[in-house]
Amino acid sequence: MQNKFAFVAGDTGSWQVRSIEAVIGEALGPARAVDVVAADAQPTVSGPSAWVLHGLMSNVRYATRPEVTALRAVSEPLGRPQARSAALIPIRKNAAWWALAQDERRAIFEETSHHTAIGLEYLPAVARQLFHCRDIAEPFDFLTWFEYAPEDAAGFETLVARLRATKEWTYVEREVDIRLER
Amino acid sequence: MQNKFAFVAGDTGSWQVRSIEAVIGEALGPARAVDVVAADAQPTVSGPSAWVLHGLMSNVRYATRPEVTALRAVSEPLGRPQARSAALIPIRKNAAWWALAQDERRAIFEETSHHTAIGLEYLPAVARQLFHCRDIAEPFDFLTWFEYAPEDAAGFETLVARLRATKEWTYVEREVDIRLER
Repeated sequence: MQNKFAFVAGDTGSWQVRSIEAVIGEALGPARAVDVVAADAQPTVSGPSAWVLHGLMSNVRYATRPEVTALRAVSEPLGRPQARSAALIPIRKNAAWWALAQDERRAIFEETSHHTAIGLEYLPAVARQLFHCRDIAEPFDFLTWFEYAPEDAAGFETLVARLRATKEWTYVEREVDIRLER
Repeated sequence: MQNKFAFVAGDTGSWQVRSIEAVIGEALGPARAVDVVAADAQPTVSGPSAWVLHGLMSNVRYATRPEVTALRAVSEPLGRPQARSAALIPIRKNAAWWALAQDERRAIFEETSHHTAIGLEYLPAVARQLFHCRDIAEPFDFLTWFEYAPEDAAGFETLVARLRATKEWTYVEREVDIRLER
């Protein structure tokens, strides 16, 4: 199974960049478009400020069986025709987060910050895929890709704002918010 | 931080191979020696049956804070002069394991199989480092490297036998056991 993907920013691509905003820490360079491709595809990167981020699809790290079941019941796939808006949000958490034990990270993630519970409120409107990149010498720990219809944009903004207000986010040391449309 | 390592098998290397045994599923090819090197080092592989396995050091995935504290209190580092025996045990778990939610995997790993509790009984005699490789297109999910003094070999055999008798191990679909000395 191909589990490694590349987000390739440059002058051309399937998704047109609307904005690239540094939320916490350093931004990414400007780009006009982003392509999402299998990492083996050796994409053509063009433009003076192009960048490429890699991420791996993997198993769940925090979700319990009831949470997995609840998420699957209301999750929709990427690529829906009406989902013409997207967001790519790379984040990196700090050393204090990664020094926590599994139960400590889980407690902050869900029992305190309600990450999954909050996300569930915005499904199925927002489709989502998480990519891991902490262990593969990338500048971020995670890339999350979201797709939604333009009429669901307000809900998506609320989702992002609520997550950024959690205790979990106090461990985020770099976050960039890239908005796209097709 | 360099977190990617390569286990390079061939005709020469720091660790002399005593045995390569297929425990579950397909074996690895015969080799006379194994080197453990930073993955960027581009090792020279020699010999007709040489193989290379890559793995990543990463954060803990199951251990709670009390378990992390207990492990650290009695863990010793790799490279002790008296630890002239080593084992490299690559394993791959099956799809059923990876389809489990985090709480289900944790319950099998520790509450049912007592993986950490069993391991603790053999510390500090056995030093250990886990490498992850499921997400990086390798033939195994994990590589575990153990070092111990020859006089602690019996204890190490008991440790391995006890882990292989657990419910957790019913999810292991490939396991190779490579014993080495220097």
